[in-house]
Amino acid sequence: MSTFQPVRGMRDLLAQDAETLTYVISKARENAQLYGFQEVITPIVEPLELLSAKSGDEIRQRMFIFDDLGGRRVALRPEFTASIARLATTALRSEPKPFRLFSVGSVYRYDEPQRGRYREFWQANFELMGSAKPEADAEIILLANSLLKNVGLTGYAIKLGHIGIVKAILAQEGVDDKTQNAVFQKMDKKEFEAAYALLNAKCRAVLEGLVALKGETSAETVEKLREHIKGYEGAVASVDNLAAILKLVTEAGCSIQKVDPAFARGLEYYTGIIFELYVPELDIALGGGGRYDKLIEAFGGEPTPAIGMAAGLDRIGLAIQAQKTVLKKHQQKKVMVIAIKEDQKGDALKIAQKLRDEGISAEFEVMGRKMAKALEDADKRNTDYAVIVGERELKEGKVVVKDLANRTQAEVEISALAQKIRS
Amino acid sequence: MSTFQPVRGMRDLLAQDAETLTYVISKARENAQLYGFQEVITPIVEPLELLSAKSGDEIRQRMFIFDDLGGRRVALRPEFTASIARLATTALRSEPKPFRLFSVGSVYRYDEPQRGRYREFWQANFELMGSAKPEADAEIILLANSLLKNVGLTGYAIKLGHIGIVKAILAQEGVDDKTQNAVFQKMDKKEFEAAYALLNAKCRAVLEGLVALKGETSAETVEKLREHIKGYEGAVASVDNLAAILKLVTEAGCSIQKVDPAFARGLEYYTGIIFELYVPELDIALGGGGRYDKLIEAFGGEPTPAIGMAAGLDRIGLAIQAQKTVLKKHQQKKVMVIAIKEDQKGDALKIAQKLRDEGISAEFEVMGRKMAKALEDADKRNTDYAVIVGERELKEGKVVVKDLANRTQAEVEISALAQKIRS
Repeated sequence: MSTFQPVRGMRDLLAQDAETLTYVISKARENAQLYGFQEVITPIVEPLELLSAKSGDEIRQRMFIFDDLGGRRVALRPEFTASIARLATTALRSEPKPFRLFSVGSVYRYDEPQRGRYREFWQANFELMGSAKPEADAEIILLANSLLKNVGLTGYAIKLGHIGIVKAILAQEGVDDKTQNAVFQKMDKKEFEAAYALLNAKCRAVLEGLVALKGETSAETVEKLREHIKGYEGAVASVDNLAAILKLVTEAGCSIQKVDPAFARGLEYYTGIIFELYVPELDIALGGGGRYDKLIEAFGGEPTPAIGMAAGLDRIGLAIQAQKTVLKKHQQKKVMVIAIKEDQKGDALKIAQKLRDEGISAEFEVMGRKMAKALEDADKRNTDYAVIVGERELKEGKVVVKDLANRTQAEVEISALAQKIRS
Repeated sequence: MSTFQPVRGMRDLLAQDAETLTYVISKARENAQLYGFQEVITPIVEPLELLSAKSGDEIRQRMFIFDDLGGRRVALRPEFTASIARLATTALRSEPKPFRLFSVGSVYRYDEPQRGRYREFWQANFELMGSAKPEADAEIILLANSLLKNVGLTGYAIKLGHIGIVKAILAQEGVDDKTQNAVFQKMDKKEFEAAYALLNAKCRAVLEGLVALKGETSAETVEKLREHIKGYEGAVASVDNLAAILKLVTEAGCSIQKVDPAFARGLEYYTGIIFELYVPELDIALGGGGRYDKLIEAFGGEPTPAIGMAAGLDRIGLAIQAQKTVLKKHQQKKVMVIAIKEDQKGDALKIAQKLRDEGISAEFEVMGRKMAKALEDADKRNTDYAVIVGERELKEGKVVVKDLANRTQAEVEISALAQKIRS
């Protein structure tokens, strides 16, 4: 019989890859704690109606959708925000504002697989609910910055936009919501010509002007932007909001590399600033987020302003590996415990157990091999010490400890074994 | 619009529940490291063919099965072992034996929801591949015991059986594999009459005798068992194997409370010992496992003896909560940073950032509330300290620190702030 393979677009993470992902997850969780975000765990399987309500066509068409055995139309979550918004309208409806929620797990999108893009991928998700203030936006951007800094990445950049600018202009020019969303979908995919084609000449000219304005973050870029959108009242308010957030973030010590007023993201629910994290050198996007002030209300909750962000953990892992970032984990000594004869196996198991109780990682020789073979294997596995349990030494409460790097060995009291290995 | 609810059988974990589950996951991962198990991450979506190949009817009928957008017949994993066996036949085919693999994540079964039983639930999974020796079986049982001990549970018990006993008897009596599997499915559900009904009078009598033999673990129980299966050669070997494992585990300091020779588990792939972890006082099963020496071969790999176990993390969480086990995590001080005026917000954000860089959890006041309101809120959230950032103090490089428990306050140098809060 031939062997099984993973489903196309899904993959196994082994050894270094699994270690990198669990490292990034642990750093994301640590970051959540530092910023006062409470962890919540929501299901991967959610009602299709929930997931498709405000996600946008782009994502809706790429979901894993099916009926469960009870005939419920469900899908695998393509992102976290819909689930968290569901919580805000139900279990957390009466929670005092603001509240901050963290989630981490896998999400699912039926994309064409390529390096760094899988159909099952991992996100850390942060949502801050209840505040419409620029300091809430600033906090989420600072948190994103901290996360990338704390995993050890360098040379990453943050791009900032504001969905309110284009939205206000199009609304004032009488473009309906549906067309607006279609325009944003095209802009998100950088298909600007296709976006322009949906608009009349005047709108097109304004939008083209915005696209041209994208550039390095500076007071000058913001001033040019302010000049360009003069006469569009809602857009002026959005630029003021963008400028206020930019000021707070910069004062707090975080650099924003790009401002792009024509930047859009694939999700329909954004209403304010949006941002993206990337590594220019590697041409890799690491995540992003934005403000969505209408979603909780649209889901049947109280009006609740909110901002959130998702970090792409696989991508961050790839960037870490590309930059050869050293994972900051404590190097543990590795020990293999070997019984010389059948009769010492129970005692040897007990000694291995004792080591683990003291926090030392201990493998037990489970193959029943001859001593020379077992030691050879221990060596291959980069084991630091072999603990050899023999009849004579046991009677004296001792074992033999072989230092496999230095090729030395010594008899050690069992009661002092853990200490010996740690030293 | 009415609010959305989770899909039936799925649930959200909030606050204490999420904290308990992430705690249990972290202990499982710690345990894996202590026993030298490498973490691997496999997809939740797997080929149906893989998942149904050896899982047994019972689980096959309760899987979430669907076609992906490319028409592939897939399912959500109902357990980990099939995925890990897939790895053993592909990516890890040439890995030197033994190897030890750890996984943790959610699994899916369409069961009738009840307390402690959900359609999405969490498992930690441990597989030791390449050894047929009793010490490998012993290691997995010791690991299971350590996990429950290390999360802080008390009063749990371990039940041990051996699928090889009944298998050998039925095979010697000419019962075919299909009927054998049907018998085990019934026995797993404790539907003994339905199991007997599938057998002839002789087999029935032997099986009834085995069922009656279940009891406290003791040399006497094992001797009675040995007596009962006399004449069934394969069963004698299985009883010898069971006795050898029991001896090793006991010598290593772990108690096995029950031996049950008629004990079966719902998965078809087991070939040797099987065991179950439970809390008698709470009548709750926490996980289990067993030996499966033929699975890797059946999946197209080299003949590879293997033993594994899965711990039900939701159940362990429930048991922890029922026993009011105190989660051993370090209590962190909670800080809220508040700017007095708009002008100090950038600086205040920077100060919050500095605290987090020093490992202190700091919330920022993002609601733009008046000081009294903000402090009242900080109090409600059990904040330890409020750090108040005002113009006058800032000029002197200071902030005001309010101790919310003691109702005292003091001016503190910003450079000494983290130290002050930690002390």
